[in-house]
Amino acid sequence: MSEVRIAGTGLTPFGNVPERTGRDLFAQASAAAFEDSGVPRDDVEAVFYGNFMGELAEHQGHQGPLMAEAAGVRAPATRYESACASSGAAIRDAVVRIRNGETDVALVGGAERMTNLGTAGATEALAIAADDLWEVRAGMTFPGAYALMAQAYFSEYGGGREELAHVAVKNHENALTNEKAQYQSAITVEDVLEAPQVSSPLGLYDSCPISDGAAAIVLTSETYAEEHDLDAPVAITGSGQGGDRMALHDREYLARSPAAREAGEEAYADAGIDATDVDLAEVHDCFTIAEVLALEALDIEPIGEGISAARDGRTTADGETPINLSGGLKAKGHPVGATGASQIAEVATLLSGEHPNSEYVAEATTGVAHNAGGTVASATVHVLEEVGRP
Amino acid sequence: MSEVRIAGTGLTPFGNVPERTGRDLFAQASAAAFEDSGVPRDDVEAVFYGNFMGELAEHQGHQGPLMAEAAGVRAPATRYESACASSGAAIRDAVVRIRNGETDVALVGGAERMTNLGTAGATEALAIAADDLWEVRAGMTFPGAYALMAQAYFSEYGGGREELAHVAVKNHENALTNEKAQYQSAITVEDVLEAPQVSSPLGLYDSCPISDGAAAIVLTSETYAEEHDLDAPVAITGSGQGGDRMALHDREYLARSPAAREAGEEAYADAGIDATDVDLAEVHDCFTIAEVLALEALDIEPIGEGISAARDGRTTADGETPINLSGGLKAKGHPVGATGASQIAEVATLLSGEHPNSEYVAEATTGVAHNAGGTVASATVHVLEEVGRP
Repeated sequence: MSEVRIAGTGLTPFGNVPERTGRDLFAQASAAAFEDSGVPRDDVEAVFYGNFMGELAEHQGHQGPLMAEAAGVRAPATRYESACASSGAAIRDAVVRIRNGETDVALVGGAERMTNLGTAGATEALAIAADDLWEVRAGMTFPGAYALMAQAYFSEYGGGREELAHVAVKNHENALTNEKAQYQSAITVEDVLEAPQVSSPLGLYDSCPISDGAAAIVLTSETYAEEHDLDAPVAITGSGQGGDRMALHDREYLARSPAAREAGEEAYADAGIDATDVDLAEVHDCFTIAEVLALEALDIEPIGEGISAARDGRTTADGETPINLSGGLKAKGHPVGATGASQIAEVATLLSGEHPNSEYVAEATTGVAHNAGGTVASATVHVLEEVGRP
Repeated sequence: MSEVRIAGTGLTPFGNVPERTGRDLFAQASAAAFEDSGVPRDDVEAVFYGNFMGELAEHQGHQGPLMAEAAGVRAPATRYESACASSGAAIRDAVVRIRNGETDVALVGGAERMTNLGTAGATEALAIAADDLWEVRAGMTFPGAYALMAQAYFSEYGGGREELAHVAVKNHENALTNEKAQYQSAITVEDVLEAPQVSSPLGLYDSCPISDGAAAIVLTSETYAEEHDLDAPVAITGSGQGGDRMALHDREYLARSPAAREAGEEAYADAGIDATDVDLAEVHDCFTIAEVLALEALDIEPIGEGISAARDGRTTADGETPINLSGGLKAKGHPVGATGASQIAEVATLLSGEHPNSEYVAEATTGVAHNAGGTVASATVHVLEEVGRP
């Protein structure tokens, strides 16, 4: 089984650029990834691309070959769609393909154009990640669904809006050094608590923004990285995926994410680590409560204790296990098809020392990326380790 | 590397059932596949699901977990979208996952609900498999694109509407015994030539119908099949995928399908066969000209000679290499997300002797399934071999 190396990563700025197409964004991200990697485009043997709402936002399906073309690559390409975990799913299959020896060099990533739909239009488009017959037609949106999850959490384990506010404050703080973040502005707990309510108990600053953006990664086999003397010190050593019932009303608990737990357990076992080995993580904080649920699903925090992690400084930049040093979905932005790949890119650069926030994790060797779809009906978890040059 | 066995297959009837949802269709197909396989649902470790136009036809994305649920399976699930090759792409990754030893039992398949959109609506939805900016906005539809390919073929290699008509006649003839086919009616060359024109030179009977339907397959590792004494004599021994530029105007030739050739060469090499070993094939005949191009891309016919294959009886049921014994997309129907999986199911039952048309291929041991997306910007090819009970 070949080890999978991260040869290069590229991100566009995340933000509000409604005039840019998905292919334009992905061309930019992939060009940056190729430049960072030193791998020639002609060596790419397969493209694994994540996108969620291209049909609705750009009247464009079949984006695999389109995005291979945008990246200047001539290779078979597939589009993976797993809602907000689309590029996480793409990476999962890329890892398997490289390990299996079928592919030596893969381009993976994703893009999403969203802001051209407007906030209401994008919220409606996002809703197709929920069950149309049983949830969406009853009026459910994702802010509403995560609000239900937060209410259930508060009622089962305690905590409240103030603890959640610390998650948002922390992630905005982390984004201050991230030039590609949608928001590079500090906020206070008061700002979060006083912001307009979106769906009780969640307010505007508990919610990630609507974003345009793309992320790309060049993955290679260890053999290829060795033969080409690549500067690729970080490997993907663990990969896991979990699934759950689609609709919230079919879940046993609203305040837990078994799909993320399953994905995490599989990824940890695959990498031969456990949660205590995790030095840092990028988790899917589409809403503040989602970060709390992710920490517990990944065993970084015990059940019922994730709520206080940001407030008590366990997950801040100088804490025990810094979470979302990139700014997270909350402050970095969430172009949904790009998010999973962007998380892997952030963890890789944090570990290799090339990230502006690497100083907080100078001793770190092991990082985790957690990507979730819908109300975590889908989840992927990847473990990255700094293993040194091949 | 573990061999991949086909443990069971299930198809819904293909046709015009606008009131049925995709999940309803996939529940039926997967139930049939589980019954055919004897594999308990609880043993499934991953679901690979193909769907193309769920966002437009059902306002439903994130269909992976939804379809796992419809199938009664609790396992991680991903939706693969590669236009009309969506379930071909799903199977490609399932094969890799099983070979890699990560998964012993996979549910693969796809579904599509289309007729609820009406013929014009479905044609418009299908168009998102082409390049929206450069083709669709200029008025291109798939009948138009394949008509261009047919014109280019006639002009380069000769032949005409009459030769194409024989493809349609043959496929309708083959479907007469297929109870699940959308059309079980014989047609004549005159019928085809006199049918209303869709896009010159293609007429109504050169075109596959708009269809609803689902297909499901239970795949297992050879080890699992052996340990559970499954009646699974057919293995997927070769898998390949190809890609091309998205838009027709970027192609070197309109009358060739290099992505299908690439996929075929990869699949043949993977299985250790060549084209002369192919006893039968299901190819992606969305239009009659598409069958001709597929035969040539798969080296079943030399370049420029595929046009006469049906007319001269080389690809009829009693011919040298029977093509589309199921009736093909033309007569069996083409619920796009289901098509790739349905082709594998047909080849498997043809080889195992359980297909109503198996009598024509009693000595056959090797079959091929060819699934194409768009104007063959994507293609997957799988080789199936009857290798005996595990």
